[in-house]
Amino acid sequence: MPEVTARFAEIVGTANLLSGTEVNEDYGHDECLTCPPRKPASVAKPGTAAEVAALLSTATELGVPVTARGSGSGLSGAARPREDGLLISFERMNAVLEIDTANQVAVVQPGVTLAELDERTAGTGLAYTVYPGELSASVGGNVGTNAGGMRAVKYGVTRNNVLGLEAVLPSGEIIRTGGKNAKISSGYDLTQLIIGSEGTLALVTEVTVKLHPRLAHAATLLAPFTDLDEVMRAVPRILAAGLTPNILEYIDNLTMAAITYTEQLSLGVPDEIRDRTQAYLVVGLENRDGERLDGDVERAGELLGELGATDVYVLDGGSARKLIEAREKAFWTAKAAGADDVVDVVVPRSEMPGFLARARELATAAGAGVVGCGHAGDGNVHLGVFCPDPDKRHRLLHEIFAAGMAAGGAISGEHGIGQAKKDHFLALEDPAKLALLRRLKQAFDPAGILNPGVLFD
Amino acid sequence: MPEVTARFAEIVGTANLLSGTEVNEDYGHDECLTCPPRKPASVAKPGTAAEVAALLSTATELGVPVTARGSGSGLSGAARPREDGLLISFERMNAVLEIDTANQVAVVQPGVTLAELDERTAGTGLAYTVYPGELSASVGGNVGTNAGGMRAVKYGVTRNNVLGLEAVLPSGEIIRTGGKNAKISSGYDLTQLIIGSEGTLALVTEVTVKLHPRLAHAATLLAPFTDLDEVMRAVPRILAAGLTPNILEYIDNLTMAAITYTEQLSLGVPDEIRDRTQAYLVVGLENRDGERLDGDVERAGELLGELGATDVYVLDGGSARKLIEAREKAFWTAKAAGADDVVDVVVPRSEMPGFLARARELATAAGAGVVGCGHAGDGNVHLGVFCPDPDKRHRLLHEIFAAGMAAGGAISGEHGIGQAKKDHFLALEDPAKLALLRRLKQAFDPAGILNPGVLFD
Ligand SMILES: Cc1cc2nc3c(=O)[nH]c(=O)nc-3n(C[C@H](O)[C@H](O)[C@H](O)COP(=O)(O)OP(=O)(O)OC[C@H]3O[C@@H](n4cnc5c(N)ncnc54)[C@H](O)[C@@H]3O)c2cc1C
Ligand SMILES: Cc1cc2nc3c(=O)[nH]c(=O)nc-3n(C[C@H](O)[C@H](O)[C@H](O)COP(=O)(O)OP(=O)(O)OC[C@H]3O[C@@H](n4cnc5c(N)ncnc54)[C@H](O)[C@@H]3O)c2cc1C
Repeated sequence: MPEVTARFAEIVGTANLLSGTEVNEDYGHDECLTCPPRKPASVAKPGTAAEVAALLSTATELGVPVTARGSGSGLSGAARPREDGLLISFERMNAVLEIDTANQVAVVQPGVTLAELDERTAGTGLAYTVYPGELSASVGGNVGTNAGGMRAVKYGVTRNNVLGLEAVLPSGEIIRTGGKNAKISSGYDLTQLIIGSEGTLALVTEVTVKLHPRLAHAATLLAPFTDLDEVMRAVPRILAAGLTPNILEYIDNLTMAAITYTEQLSLGVPDEIRDRTQAYLVVGLENRDGERLDGDVERAGELLGELGATDVYVLDGGSARKLIEAREKAFWTAKAAGADDVVDVVVPRSEMPGFLARARELATAAGAGVVGCGHAGDGNVHLGVFCPDPDKRHRLLHEIFAAGMAAGGAISGEHGIGQAKKDHFLALEDPAKLALLRRLKQAFDPAGILNPGVLFD
Repeated sequence: MPEVTARFAEIVGTANLLSGTEVNEDYGHDECLTCPPRKPASVAKPGTAAEVAALLSTATELGVPVTARGSGSGLSGAARPREDGLLISFERMNAVLEIDTANQVAVVQPGVTLAELDERTAGTGLAYTVYPGELSASVGGNVGTNAGGMRAVKYGVTRNNVLGLEAVLPSGEIIRTGGKNAKISSGYDLTQLIIGSEGTLALVTEVTVKLHPRLAHAATLLAPFTDLDEVMRAVPRILAAGLTPNILEYIDNLTMAAITYTEQLSLGVPDEIRDRTQAYLVVGLENRDGERLDGDVERAGELLGELGATDVYVLDGGSARKLIEAREKAFWTAKAAGADDVVDVVVPRSEMPGFLARARELATAAGAGVVGCGHAGDGNVHLGVFCPDPDKRHRLLHEIFAAGMAAGGAISGEHGIGQAKKDHFLALEDPAKLALLRRLKQAFDPAGILNPGVLFD
């Protein structure tokens, strides 16, 4: 065991330090389609914040690059370690420390998965409402990427649902930010600065999240449209009606065909309608009161008709669940279908039709294809990109990202920049802003040990 | 005109640059009770971001301290200028640039007041829902303090309702952060970092805010309780019931007596009940549907009864409006009554009874008094502190703030630290965190020109 590894092993115990051939291939990658695995020199599995602190101060002292890993379900390559680096896996720090119903918060360790947190809150009448498609994702990873998911249209993204953190600085200092308070105005908001920083500023060892009342009644509507533009135009209208949907997704016809085929899903849409459909809107509604829900379903149905839906199907519980699950697995479907990349540009909602049309134009011009679905209520377009040639794809993505930014949007709405989109980020973002981001990075991590190669070169 | 002033006058034009005796006393202070006015060397009233940029790069070059001013309604002394400094007043940058109903956002200049923005959105079916008690406050000032107010219990604070900024760095660089997007995960969140920074990091020249549907139906319930603890214990229960109140305030009996007296307000509470009341809970409900509102009012009334309210009054529109207005003016009432300070500690909601009891104990031991009201739904306790001796008061506040922090809270929930609470902040906050905040300040403002003396020494 080389000396560096031995230093880390001293901190976490040899049972919790892997190196060489003990390092499983899984630790070398996340789910990013364009970031091939890279085996780290060692993997540490700390059990406490103090151990994380000792690992980081040692890494700073020795100049060892450190990458944090939650569940490795990220899509930007941000959890992909360096070959000369230490991977800190939070798999052992996976306790739900407290469910505090009076303050409607949960305090969890970063390795807790969303599935576990959902299970643990189930009996309390409360729920954690950040629900990205992959429920094996960890809360710490969600903080790293500022994860979103379908329910963000009603409840907001991770950023809006995290009240406090315990975090370890690269120096080994342990700080606490925020807390169980609903709000705070006492100095710069470090909680918000760390959220979405993709493991480049500090490592999170405890998270205090908001819980919301679990509403007893829910319904899912499926509305086919003959025109994708119409779908996009319907979105702001539905939101303005005050129905506060908890799901507002679009799925284009190709993606719908793929996911219904893969998941063996029958939604009761007659062939005749399906054949004329360019895209579907999925609208989820929920209420604490069954009658109110019925009223909302009726109102939403009428509205969808007025907005141009060919028909509106209120899905039964089983089909609804299956459709949502299939939608959550759209990434795997795209991967299985041979997509070369999946990106998640975000634009102002009203810009979705224009942006999507532009993206298709650009793809066609490049001899490539884009299909997709997305969190329409958030203006977050998930595109499967079919373009095997890496150089061509790089150029196409550059144009697609530039088009999103020109429409007032950003390269990523929820997956992050990571390693996969870094080139584009550095090329397209305002240099004055990039310089400021680098100075902030420097303020946290002067030795540059945390996730080098992510966000910046 | 000294040379420095002349440089600033060149930028904004002599008509928009005041110095010497032209500087009105009002520019020397905000509404903080403990920060006596301090006349700045000059006041500039820029009309564009480019002018702000030129002012800041010149100030950096010359080492002139700069303080930003919105409407000067702040309560922490954060808009109080330095005698050797430049005050930048945003009073001329007061245009509502766009109300975008499709994306449900407004784009405004920082000098726009909340009253103006409310008027301008009134016809659109949408509203800006951040509603601190003082509607003459500016949106830029709200960004500076991360303002809250009564409706935060439902809609969140400024931080949760600002999507994008245009901001000028002390170097004179103009950056844009965020935008009209619902979410973003592309680099560190500068929008969030600037919000609540009290004019110490960057000056804001444009703000993109979220709008929410204006709900047509509203009701206000007033519930007297014989026991303040009971009020506090009722708060989480009401929130857990899923009624999503847009107002959830407590008002103690002394404060209620003062505001009803000052505002000549009659609420129909019989003397017999009033005399036994220790505190009131005010519950605001709203709905797009009148029948649903009625249902919620009924449910809330029952619940308040179960939770120990002596009685529940559904106020008619006029009385409700007057009570809310009187509550908003509680600060002026406290000031008129001779309060020596007003503070706004925030704690986890469940800690309010304990914290309030402790604050009263500490005050009594110091021969002082504390009375108050507050945004109970947020755990945000506004205390009028009666303690004329400055040293005694300093010690008492130190103890009160320490008690709030020991309960998991923070010195300020929405007013900020400013100059008034800086000593306490620096004494009570974790040194490792303070050092990090200073490094962040350095990353934005290496010359230290922006609001020196605010947050830090
Ligand atoms: C099928 C599928 C569907 C998906 N759907 C969505 C979706 O709808 N919305 C969405 O937002 N995402 C989605 N994702 C992406 C992914 O689930 C999220 O990015 C998630 O937040 C990653 O969590 P993780 O625990 O797997 O993090 P990892 O991939 O392990 O890490 C993600 C980032 O967080 C950092 N990190 C991890 N732990 C910590 C810590 N303790 N402290 C500091 N940094 C840390 C890592 O270094 C890395 O930068 C989907 C992924 C898949 C495979
Ligand atoms: C009667 C009364 C009731 C109140 N009720 C509440 C309440 O319920 N909730 C609440 O949160 N507050 C309340 N306040 C406090 C006050 O209204 C808020 O702090 C408000 O945000 C201040 O806005 P302003 O425009 O007056 O800002 P100012 O006092 O002018 O400035 C506040 C801070 O913002 C900075 N700033 C101003 N403009 C800019 C800019 N363009 N760029 C960068 N920084 C800038 C200043 O430098 C300063 O640090 C109340 C005040 C009064 C007098």
